[in-house]
Amino acid sequence: MKIGKNTIPRTAISTSDEHAIVVRGADLCKDLIGRISFTDYFHLLVTGRRPGAAATAVLDATLVAIAEHGLVPSVQASRMTLAAAPDALQGAVAAGILGCGSVILGASETAGRLFAEIEARASAAGGIDAAVPAVLQEYRAARRAIPGYGHPLHKERDPRVAALFAVARDSGADLRYIEIAEAIERHIPQAVGKDLRLNVSAAIPAVLLGVGFPLAALKGVPILARTAGLIAHLNEELEQSIGFALSYQATRELQYDGETPPGFGGSQAAQ
Amino acid sequence: MKIGKNTIPRTAISTSDEHAIVVRGADLCKDLIGRISFTDYFHLLVTGRRPGAAATAVLDATLVAIAEHGLVPSVQASRMTLAAAPDALQGAVAAGILGCGSVILGASETAGRLFAEIEARASAAGGIDAAVPAVLQEYRAARRAIPGYGHPLHKERDPRVAALFAVARDSGADLRYIEIAEAIERHIPQAVGKDLRLNVSAAIPAVLLGVGFPLAALKGVPILARTAGLIAHLNEELEQSIGFALSYQATRELQYDGETPPGFGGSQAAQ
Amino acid sequence: MKIGKNTIPRTAISTSDEHAIVVRGADLCKDLIGRISFTDYFHLLVTGRRPGAAATAVLDATLVAIAEHGLVPSVQASRMTLAAAPDALQGAVAAGILGCGSVILGASETAGRLFAEIEARASAAGGIDAAVPAVLQEYRAARRAIPGYGHPLHKERDPRVAALFAVARDSGADLRYIEIAEAIERHIPQAVGKDLRLNVSAAIPAVLLGVGFPLAALKGVPILARTAGLIAHLNEELEQSIGFALSYQATRELQYDGETPPGFGGSQAAQ
Amino acid sequence: MKIGKNTIPRTAISTSDEHAIVVRGADLCKDLIGRISFTDYFHLLVTGRRPGAAATAVLDATLVAIAEHGLVPSVQASRMTLAAAPDALQGAVAAGILGCGSVILGASETAGRLFAEIEARASAAGGIDAAVPAVLQEYRAARRAIPGYGHPLHKERDPRVAALFAVARDSGADLRYIEIAEAIERHIPQAVGKDLRLNVSAAIPAVLLGVGFPLAALKGVPILARTAGLIAHLNEELEQSIGFALSYQATRELQYDGETPPGFGGSQAAQ
Repeated sequence: MKIGKNTIPRTAISTSDEHAIVVRGADLCKDLIGRISFTDYFHLLVTGRRPGAAATAVLDATLVAIAEHGLVPSVQASRMTLAAAPDALQGAVAAGILGCGSVILGASETAGRLFAEIEARASAAGGIDAAVPAVLQEYRAARRAIPGYGHPLHKERDPRVAALFAVARDSGADLRYIEIAEAIERHIPQAVGKDLRLNVSAAIPAVLLGVGFPLAALKGVPILARTAGLIAHLNEELEQSIGFALSYQATRELQYDGETPPGFGGSQAAQ
Repeated sequence: MKIGKNTIPRTAISTSDEHAIVVRGADLCKDLIGRISFTDYFHLLVTGRRPGAAATAVLDATLVAIAEHGLVPSVQASRMTLAAAPDALQGAVAAGILGCGSVILGASETAGRLFAEIEARASAAGGIDAAVPAVLQEYRAARRAIPGYGHPLHKERDPRVAALFAVARDSGADLRYIEIAEAIERHIPQAVGKDLRLNVSAAIPAVLLGVGFPLAALKGVPILARTAGLIAHLNEELEQSIGFALSYQATRELQYDGETPPGFGGSQAAQ
Repeated sequence: MKIGKNTIPRTAISTSDEHAIVVRGADLCKDLIGRISFTDYFHLLVTGRRPGAAATAVLDATLVAIAEHGLVPSVQASRMTLAAAPDALQGAVAAGILGCGSVILGASETAGRLFAEIEARASAAGGIDAAVPAVLQEYRAARRAIPGYGHPLHKERDPRVAALFAVARDSGADLRYIEIAEAIERHIPQAVGKDLRLNVSAAIPAVLLGVGFPLAALKGVPILARTAGLIAHLNEELEQSIGFALSYQATRELQYDGETPPGFGGSQAAQ
Repeated sequence: MKIGKNTIPRTAISTSDEHAIVVRGADLCKDLIGRISFTDYFHLLVTGRRPGAAATAVLDATLVAIAEHGLVPSVQASRMTLAAAPDALQGAVAAGILGCGSVILGASETAGRLFAEIEARASAAGGIDAAVPAVLQEYRAARRAIPGYGHPLHKERDPRVAALFAVARDSGADLRYIEIAEAIERHIPQAVGKDLRLNVSAAIPAVLLGVGFPLAALKGVPILARTAGLIAHLNEELEQSIGFALSYQATRELQYDGETPPGFGGSQAAQ
């Protein structure tokens, strides 16, 4: 079935023949394997350009910052999936990645868009501190959450924020988006009525946009990073399974608030 | 519901409090962000150990080698999925990862198990070249494929093999599993009746086992690597969608070999 | 980690003890198995109510209408996934479902929301035909597509539309949302500038809302239906695999528009 | 890339032109919508044949039996995924389906294979009761679990078993595979050393094989059924989210058994 007008597929990422594989213009076997790190290769794959030293440092730092934070919901979902289907590691990884959505990890991209909006308006508005309140007000008027601020565990600033900002500073990255991120943090109490501090999902675009990483590709960074964490958890799960223990604990206080037929519940159990 | 005996979940990967995130015994923000590459962090996450120089070189090389090979089936599936559901990047990544199964990328792990089997028997059997034919014969008797040999495009040795072996040699890795992989290649024509050459899925365990990467974790390497390639393709898909063009082309020669009701087909179309 | 304020999970769908499983207040083994069709059970599970005769007829008709339409992109993605990972049927089903997104099947829900919006305004506006142009104009002003109209293959009305509307009429369903759907169709040429006809994704909410099926649950109908079609395709794939043939065909006219290193391409291949 | 020899895709499930959609030889809009239940359509899609009355009754009963059993691990994984990515219902359904693997729901198919094996040998062996111990012994010798017996909650026979067997009897289905299933149950204490009773995953193939449902398609039945249950849970999740509450509860007794850096843990939290 023809859907849309475009019927000839095109790509600029890779081509190959029997003897060589070309990726982004380079010969994979002669120019890349053994000559480029996985982080730099990710940058090359996504952007078509090799990163400079600052971009390497910052991209490595963001991938390390977001890869792992213990048994978060998506890791639990992934480990439960592997416990139920241990032959299909790829299925459990996929289940974990499916939890990288708008609420949890998607804020990296939406915070990036917020920063880019403020950056675009800053000079006309008379500087960052003038642009921020206007944009925050528009978000509030449209009932949009301010992405990347506040954290359920880290009530003060998420400790990953300072670490990422230090890498950006030390590597000579452009710090403009960090300025914007911090300006938003200062204005949030007045705009939102709560003192929400920068979390890692705002710090990631703040440092990556400063090394030229494309806005549209931001969402891929937490997904790649989390895949590394998921694989570690799934290897631990194969050695010592806790997927079913997690699901048992999860329902110990479960309350059933539907109806039951007459006579049910001589013995009692919530599932 | 209690499934199995274990009801208390445990993990040794990560813990945290309000002020610090601990990963594999290290403080994420003080010791890792900005101080470790993503590749080394992946090694640390999975194995609990930081890699030595040879392990870093080899792990980087394998991740780079396997991340991207153009519009392979799983990439097509992923791009078609994004074309249909462009709001859910994580869903398209997941669809692509679900194609990292036994036939396509799973051979890294099964080839690793084959090499480990030969390694375990080599000294008792009087050397690698004595152990190989026996194990190959057992595989044939059990109608198991020899994983990691032969490639639909690269009829001579997959060019990534030599590149990976060179990295192993140059970095000072243990070359024993490369020897085993090449011994199998020499014996395959007699054992299988076809001249199947080493492909990348055999080269990956051959070099990784030589730097102490655990057998059980091999399957995660192509999954992490492909995630990077998938994210690149999905960014290209968002800029210039080919998902529906691919699906249109795929069915241009489709043959319907079921029945049709009377009168069907004044106009004709295969779907 | 505590995310949000709610820490006690609750459900009204099912509970059980050692002797009985309760679903929506009924004893699964005494009252449901052998006494209720799968379609009616789906209605009970989702809404908490057993359907009347009209709701059964309409829900069956919509599930049948949308389950299968040949080798559409999500079916191709699913079959390619099974070809690559034949041991994990669940993974291939999941890959197919991941293509049930906003562009392809999500229109059932968004069209339902459009109809509900018009229904809500109709009496104040002086009838459906007065409410429709105003709402369409708002959609256009907000650059939102009108969901459920137009089809890449069925340029006249999708033939499933008349079939579904006939079931609604014959079963005595409330036809108000069909009226709304047809009113929109009449106003589309003027509002949009193209003569887009009702497709199945608009017909589904038009008939389901008329039998009291909840708006919020509409998106689940195409997902359940497509799962049936996917399972049929995957069974065919296990018997006669075409996953790799599809991917081969898909790239026969692939154009690589990136760079190549010097000397590449003595032999030629697009991947 | 050409993988395998087959390059022309074929299908016998569906074709269409601008005016009609053909499914398994019938005109979808004239012959199927409004004229066939979803259950019968599923049978037609998968097998190419319309079911007789017994097959309808039994297939409905199995789909109803297995669709829902409360907050089992795959439902938890699915609800956690929706809580994290509420915009992508299809992603949460996919995550739930990915838990329909070998350990949890895959037993329907493997138990079916066990029954078919015994059926194939019964006449040569002198009857079912002679064939069963031999096959069980072979399973034990090969360290294969006996699929479909034992249940973590239902220590006596899973109550769904009797309900399914009653439907088979009342509908006039062939009861031969029920005989086989019960013969296995009688021999298990001696063969395995534990008194494991029939569970729903053995009852499903026992009744479905008796109405001619194909062995190879058994695995699809629990997947389709569970999709209905998942959609119900995800609708409840959208109304009243418990995904994060489940994940909070799951880790309340989590034990971290890795190392911590000096000074960690003035305040304490397990993730």
